[in-house]
Parts: sequence; structure tokens; C-alpha cells
Amino acid sequence: MTITLSQIRPGAYYDSVVLMQLQKGLAALPGVADAGVVMGTAANQALLKESDLLLPEATAARPDDLLIVVRAESEALAASALAQVDSLLQKRRGQPGSSQGTGPGDWPAYRPRSLVAALKALPAAQWVLVSLPGRYAASVAQEALNLGRHVFLYSDNVALADEVALKHEARQKGLLVMGPDCGTAIVNGVGLGFANRVRRGWIGLVGASGTGLQAITSHIHNLGGGVSQAIGTGGRDLKAEVGGVTAHQSLDLLARDEATQVIILVSKPPAPEVAARLLAAAQAVGKPVVLYFIGQPPPGRQIGNVTFATSLREAAELAVTGNWQLVRDNDQSPITNYLLPGFVRGLFSGGTLAYEAVVGLQAVLAPLYTNVPITEAQRLPDSLRSQAHAILDLGADEFTVGRLHPMMDNDLRLRKLRQEAADPDVSLILLDVVLGEGAHPDPAAELAPAVAQALASRGSADAAQLECVVIVVGTDDDPQGLTGQVERLAQAGATVFRSVDEAVDHVARRFAHPVKDAHPPVNLDTLRAPLAAVNVGLEMFYDSLIAQGAAAVQVEWRPPAGGNEKLMALLAKMKRPMD
Amino acid sequence: MTITLSQIRPGAYYDSVVLMQLQKGLAALPGVADAGVVMGTAANQALLKESDLLLPEATAARPDDLLIVVRAESEALAASALAQVDSLLQKRRGQPGSSQGTGPGDWPAYRPRSLVAALKALPAAQWVLVSLPGRYAASVAQEALNLGRHVFLYSDNVALADEVALKHEARQKGLLVMGPDCGTAIVNGVGLGFANRVRRGWIGLVGASGTGLQAITSHIHNLGGGVSQAIGTGGRDLKAEVGGVTAHQSLDLLARDEATQVIILVSKPPAPEVAARLLAAAQAVGKPVVLYFIGQPPPGRQIGNVTFATSLREAAELAVTGNWQLVRDNDQSPITNYLLPGFVRGLFSGGTLAYEAVVGLQAVLAPLYTNVPITEAQRLPDSLRSQAHAILDLGADEFTVGRLHPMMDNDLRLRKLRQEAADPDVSLILLDVVLGEGAHPDPAAELAPAVAQALASRGSADAAQLECVVIVVGTDDDPQGLTGQVERLAQAGATVFRSVDEAVDHVARRFAHPVKDAHPPVNLDTLRAPLAAVNVGLEMFYDSLIAQGAAAVQVEWRPPAGGNEKLMALLAKMKRPMD
Repeated sequence: MTITLSQIRPGAYYDSVVLMQLQKGLAALPGVADAGVVMGTAANQALLKESDLLLPEATAARPDDLLIVVRAESEALAASALAQVDSLLQKRRGQPGSSQGTGPGDWPAYRPRSLVAALKALPAAQWVLVSLPGRYAASVAQEALNLGRHVFLYSDNVALADEVALKHEARQKGLLVMGPDCGTAIVNGVGLGFANRVRRGWIGLVGASGTGLQAITSHIHNLGGGVSQAIGTGGRDLKAEVGGVTAHQSLDLLARDEATQVIILVSKPPAPEVAARLLAAAQAVGKPVVLYFIGQPPPGRQIGNVTFATSLREAAELAVTGNWQLVRDNDQSPITNYLLPGFVRGLFSGGTLAYEAVVGLQAVLAPLYTNVPITEAQRLPDSLRSQAHAILDLGADEFTVGRLHPMMDNDLRLRKLRQEAADPDVSLILLDVVLGEGAHPDPAAELAPAVAQALASRGSADAAQLECVVIVVGTDDDPQGLTGQVERLAQAGATVFRSVDEAVDHVARRFAHPVKDAHPPVNLDTLRAPLAAVNVGLEMFYDSLIAQGAAAVQVEWRPPAGGNEKLMALLAKMKRPMD
Repeated sequence: MTITLSQIRPGAYYDSVVLMQLQKGLAALPGVADAGVVMGTAANQALLKESDLLLPEATAARPDDLLIVVRAESEALAASALAQVDSLLQKRRGQPGSSQGTGPGDWPAYRPRSLVAALKALPAAQWVLVSLPGRYAASVAQEALNLGRHVFLYSDNVALADEVALKHEARQKGLLVMGPDCGTAIVNGVGLGFANRVRRGWIGLVGASGTGLQAITSHIHNLGGGVSQAIGTGGRDLKAEVGGVTAHQSLDLLARDEATQVIILVSKPPAPEVAARLLAAAQAVGKPVVLYFIGQPPPGRQIGNVTFATSLREAAELAVTGNWQLVRDNDQSPITNYLLPGFVRGLFSGGTLAYEAVVGLQAVLAPLYTNVPITEAQRLPDSLRSQAHAILDLGADEFTVGRLHPMMDNDLRLRKLRQEAADPDVSLILLDVVLGEGAHPDPAAELAPAVAQALASRGSADAAQLECVVIVVGTDDDPQGLTGQVERLAQAGATVFRSVDEAVDHVARRFAHPVKDAHPPVNLDTLRAPLAAVNVGLEMFYDSLIAQGAAAVQVEWRPPAGGNEKLMALLAKMKRPMD
């Protein structure tokens, strides 16, 4: 038989380490079976319930309240435990060093209570690390930007709107905001937040994924390679709302960083248009890039200088062991010195070829529509009417009622080809030709003149206006004669490939429009100067900086206005420079 | 100035080749600008409209009606063209040979009008090829099964329920139904439907994707390899409703076929549970398998004998050039001779590690739930309550309000670990341990005893009851001491891996439950005997069989009851053997 007692402390602010240690302290008291010390969120209450620690009266706790629960062998023991909460909190605060004990020894003599004071103590600090609870984090990050410092924002539960505002302001100032929810970075050999100790080397990383960066950097080290820089962006950076601000800044930094010879980009699947822009930027860095969008089908093995990985471990392997000279030598597509505006329209006879083209092109073209969608957002509202970039499978059921398959009958494709060529917004038409038994005996005889006519209709003087790309699937034994088919299509002006992925690679290069960034670049010295940082929040991150030989100052932070949110907002307004 | 006239012929049946040729015939008449000959479906009407060929009166045409439209320079010329429809149809029917002209010469003297008669003429025919319009196709396929023949069902627009019924019946009889909407197969060196002419060799294929098979077999040939058999399943075979009946039969056939040394499986993304069963079956074939689920992120590069490709071309390359001896040598996971029932529960501290585990395990475990879903169907309704196979990211925002991240504080994971171990339906618990700066100074000190306790709680005598798998991410320079951490976890009884994909590979093997199929196997002689077939539908497929040296008979098919659907259903009922 046990008795459970609880206590609610409204609006109290405590460091999460303090809460963890209080919980451990309570659980270790005589007669105490279990204890819980959490903020009163619904999720935390549910977790207490799972451990049989949630009393009916405790459900009154609000998210900002501290909720303390003790289950003990008797009511007296439980009450006694609760009575020791304050002394346990005091005890913790009086202890020298931090929980990890990796600090430089005793409790430092001086702990500034503000960012401004901390930066006066350590003016060389380029970085401010913020690991406060989410509701306090954005305003401290904002203050750091105001003071001209880069931000490593570990905190989660930060509003998306705050992230957007912080990153837009940082970009204007040539500053980086890693995060929120950025777990990991390695800057100039020093790990920020959670970071493995790895050899320095020539592989630079950008990651919207904390443990993704940790796993890859660890694998790189374990494979004998080394890391130049590892920049975290926070998990939401590649969402449409944020637009990959930090990822683009980071990619640009690593492109300019001479110590970085290969770049690894890792993220959960980005928003399609963000992914397309980032891939275009990656194609333009002039260095080999390994890209791993976790959970997204790769568009093939390689597009230009970008190789696609299928696991964290493989990303590391490709970067460490990849034969990059080979990548550059293979880079021989008939690319010309212009980039295509306008849209791609695919007119396929082969359903799987259309589908594989969508898999590949969705990584580089946005928005992309099709009647063979991979995600519902890609579904063409009307299969008969192309819009934006569009891939049509003309062999789909809706087109073949009482009509021969387009592999046998080119009529529908010829009509569509004329229509697309007449659309001035279309700059590339993608076709497939599938040879073999059962298929049209001579598709080039019908398609080649149509391609020539389509190209001519757009003014042969300026070839940039329209390009026809044809994927020819077949063998030298096929009855149509592979060589002759390819030659006639090429003579008509088509760019001919023999597989979908080669065609995707070609289209990806032609449509790669790296956005010219008018914002000031982040100063490369950020990565090169000995790391110095101010830490606001979890002391273990301060300890870790010191242990790694970096210069660091810990801010003895307390919530402004005692945690009163209205007053906090007012204070923040007063601090912000005039717009 | 042109005039458009149209004609509707209610409920008329014509071969699509006839319709194509009628359209070409009309368009070639003097003064005719364009012509359309289609069945009156909404899609076809819309296509006519795009070519400016849809008159208001023509919109009255129903899907079963033949719609003939002519646009000419004058009304007289248009009317004259329409008046020639019957003679054009007659002319076509009177021509010797077929459109492709690849047949053996003249129109054959005898053309049976029924399947029964055709099989009397060619009793050796193991195959019936059906390429009739969808609404007629299922009953002919059913008749072929009744007569003990395998079916190659090219037709699309066949009802899903008919597909399910046909395949279930075929399986009972040890027969194959390729299709509906099966474009391609190569059986014993002879292409059915659309098929490229490729070298014979030791690579066998199973594809729910027609042009996928064509592209891969062509690439194989072009790379110098060869094909033993290529079996099409139809695009819907791997949907949940059909359950991959044909794919499983085909995989089993190729497993038993001595000429096949490597198997390639290709499909658009299957239903999750079908994918898991198929992958389990692929793991059990005892031959190297290359698997390409187009548009689905691969669960890594390799699971046991199964290598995952990322493009049609790469699938061919892997099969032709893959070092299969190497695959077998690497196959050294600590697999024991039992397979696990029950569920996998993942308790992760690293969000990306959890996510990559979901990417990998979704291919092998179904249903799989998680708070870091890739598809919405995977979303765990309540993050606090595991169900079925479940992967939890305990570092997700909902768990870290006022609580330290699980990389620093193991309390939540230890509680969850005890809960999962107490659930008798759980047979494998998957954990990660992330070392490095900022993380817990000694995670093994807390996790190893908990693992040992969890294993002991389930009875150490029968180790099959519970397994703990731990992924340790870190380097030999990390402050926690990598070797010591790994050793203590292993000593506690955990199976330790150093990357997510190795752990996924391990779990995939442990949960591979190839379903024992109680149905009669398909006779291997099906693939070995010289191909003989009856063709019902498009004559070009008959021509192609003859051109390839196969024995074939073309059925001079006409719809039963003149196409009257009610009468057809009645006739079909009378023909079917008593149940």
C-alpha cells in the first residue's frame, strides 16, 4: 500500500536539470517509491498517469505550473518528502560545478545575469547558445541578433512564426540562426549542444537533423575521415514557411570554405519547392555534394555533382570513399550555358517510365503535376489539361477506352505534342519511345517529324525556346532498329537518352536556377576563428564548451518579469531597436 | 472555314486497331482536315473537344457507343467521308495480314471463333492472351482458367473485384494470371504483349510494372546480361485487395527455376502489408534479389539477400554486375533459427534515428505506428500508448516540455522500457544510445541494468521471448568511452549495432515470416516448355508470337450476345461449371 501526494507551484521557472535532480532527490528519500517533477502540460500529466503518479487534484495544473508528485509507503513519508522540496532545490543550487562535473572546477566567481553583461565579459564570443524553455528562447535569440551574434538555438517548442522572424532578420545581418530545435553543430572543431568528438577533415555537413548529423559525423570518423564543419539548421528549416534560410546560408558558407572539399546535406523530406531550390543551390556549389533526404525516394543515384544516399551510414561512406574525380569526369551532359525558364511537359507512353520520371523530377521541379502522382498534392486536377510542370502517362486507363495504347498508336501523343509546343510557357517536352515486340513498328517515322515541327514552330534561331528530350527504351535486337530510331529522333533535334535517370539528370541541370541571394554573406571567419560563446540555459553545454577548450561564459539567466508573459512582451518591445 | 459532322453508332464493338485505322482512313480522304473515331467515354469526348472535334450532339454518346467525327472543308465533303465509314470498315476487314505485317503471310484459312475451338486446334497452348476491351476481358480470362490455362491479361479497365476473383481461382488451380493491365512478359524466351528482344540469361524478373520490366530487361541486355524469365503481375497485384497473389506465385516459380540465379522485383509502392509479406518471401528464396519499389524510399542498401535499387537502370546494373558471392559472405548477422512473433517497440532518444528506423522498418513491419510518421497512416493516435509495431521518438516536442532531452535524462526511457517489457505481445525492444558532448555521461550505467532486468523479467530460459537491440552512435574519442558502453550493453544481453541500417537489417531478418502457401505450386514446366498460346484480342500480339517462332492461334472473337451485357452475364453463368 502506497500513498501519493502532489503539489502545484504556479508559474515557477526552473532549469530542466534542476527538475530532473529534484525528481531524483525525492525518489531517493527513505520510503519513497516513485516521484515525478514536471511542468503541468497534458503530455506530462499523461506520462505521470502511466506511472501511476497522477492524482485527480494534479490535473488542475497548467502548462506553466510546476507539478511535484511523490508516492511513498505512508502519508507521513510522502508529506515529509514534499516538505523537503525547497531544501533539495537549495542544495542543488549551492553545489559547485554542474551535474556532469566536466567543468573547469569550482563554481565560477562571476556569472553575468544578462547577455549584454556576458558579452562584455567575453567580447570575442561570435555565438550565443540558447537552451532555455521554448517560451523564453525566442526573445533571447532576438537579443543575440541585436547584439550581432550568431545563434545556436537548442530550445524546442519555439513558435514557427518566431523562427521565421529570427531567420529573416539574421539573414539581413549576415548572421546564422541554427535552430530552433538544433541539437548539434561542430564549428571550427568545437561541438555545440550534442556532438560527437570527431577528427577534423575535409567533409562539411549541413543538417536539418540533429542525430542525423551526429550519426553521419560519427560514421565519418569511424571510417577514418574527418569533418571540417557541421552546421545544424533545426528540423523546420526546410519547411515551406521557413524556406531553408539557414540551409542556404550554410551551403554558401561551405561552398566558400576552402577546408571543405565535399559537402553532405541531410534532412527529413523538405517541402517540394524548398527541396528543388536547395538541390539547385547544391548543383551550383562547385563541389561534390552527398544529399540524403531521409524518407524520400532518391531521384536516382546522381544528378550532376550531387550523389543521393539511402542511409546515414551510406552518406558517410559516399563522402569518405567516393571517387570525386570520377564524378567530375562523368559530368558531361550536353549542358549549354543557359538555364531554362518555363515548364517541363512529359508525354509518356510507358506508365512506369512516367512514374519514375515523377520520382526523379519531383526533387527538382516544383510545383509538379501528374496523372501518376506519388503524393496526392501532385495529382493533376484534369488529366487532359497540363499545368505548371506536368508529367502525363497517356497509357493510363482514362486514355485507353476504345483506343490503342500509345505504344502502338501515336495519334494522341502527336496531338498533345503540338498543343504543348504551341504553349509559350513550355520550354521542354519529355517523351518516351518504347521499342520491342507488340509496339509501333516505326515510332520515329511519326514522332521525329513532329519533334522537328515542334522545334521549328518556336523559332529555330533561338534554340533556348524549346527543347525535346526523348527517352528511347530498347535493344539492338528489337524489330524497329534501335540505332535508326535514335538517329532519326536526334536528327530531328531531340536530345536522346536511354534511361529515365539520365533524362532526369539532364532536365535537373537545365532547370537548376540557384536563386541569387542579395543578402550579405555570412563571414567565413565565423568558422575559422577560435570558438567563443555565451551559453544561456543548460549548464552542461557550457561545461562541454570548456571541456573542449573553447572560451565560454554562462549566463545566470532568470525569466524577465518573473515569468509574467505580458510583462515579458512589454520588456521585449522596449529593448528592441526602433524599426 | 471547315464543317464538322458526327455519327453515333450505339453499342457497336470494334477492335481498337480497326478504330485507329478507320480514323486514319477518314483523315486521309480528300478535303478532310481531321477525324476522330473513339468510344464515347467522357475522357474521349474531352479529348475530341481539345482537337476541336466535339459537336454538341456528339455529347449524347454513351461509353459503349462508337463516336465518329469528321471535320472537312465543306459539308458535302464531310458527309461524303461519313458515308464511307462502312466501306472503310469492310476494306480493313478484307485485308490480308494485320497492321504490322509481321505475320506469317496470308490471312489464315481457319480462325476459330471460340476459346474452346482454338484450344482444340492448339492443345499444347499453356497460355491464353487476352487483350479485349476491359468489359469483355474478365469472362474470357475466366473461361481460360476453366480450361486449365494460364492467362496473360493485357486488357485494362477490368474491375478490381474481377481481378481478385480470377487470381484467387487461379491460385487454387496452380495457374498464373498475369494482369489485368499486364503489358509485358517474357516466358521461355518469347515476349508476350510488349516486350523487347533480349538475350537469354540467368536474371529472372517479377514486375507489377510493364514498362518497368521493359526498361530493366533492355538495360540488362544492353549491359551484356540476359533474362531467364520476366513475369508481369499487372499494376494492381500488390494492392491490399489483391495481396500480391501473382507476385508471390512468380517469386516462388523463379526460386525453383534453376536457370534463374538472380531475381529482380519491381513495382510501384505496394500496400504496406503486401510489401512486408513480399519482402519476407524475397528473403526466403535463397537467391540474391534486387528490389525496386519505385517512389518508395529504400529501407537501406541491403537486407540480407535483398539489395534495394534506386532506379530501373540501377536495378539492371546491380543484377548484372552485383557481386553476389560478396552478398552471401556478408550475410553474417547473428540470426538464430527462430523467427520472432509479436511486436517491435522502438524507444528512441534521437529523432532522426527514429525516423530512419521508420523508413527502414516500414518495408518489413506492418502495421507500423510512430510519432514521427512518414505517411499519415503511420501516425500513432496517442504518442504515449504503443500499438502493433511502434517506433517512439522520446525527444519529440511533446515529451520535452520542462523535461531534459532523453539523451541527457533516461528516466522516461527507463519507465517505457519496463512497460514494454511487461507487455507479452512485445518481442523486440529497439533503443538508441547517442554518445558525445552534451549527452548523458554514462548512459550504459542506467540502460544496461534496465535491459538485463527486462530480459530477465521474460524468462531467461527462453531467449526467444524478448530481444533488446541497441544502436550505439559514437566515436572512440567520445567522453563516455565507446567500447565500454558497447560492452556493458552487450553483457546485459543486448544485441548492439552501430548504425540504424544494420539494426533494420537485423530486425527485418528476425521478423521475416514467409507465409507458407498451401496452394498448389505453379508447374515449372510452364516456363520450360516451348511457348504456345491462344490470342484473343489485338492481332499484333498474335503476329508478334508467330514472328518470335512461338505456336499461336488467333481467335476471331465477337462479343457474346452482340455485346448485350445482360445477355452476356447470363451466358457466362451458363458456361461456368457448377459450384
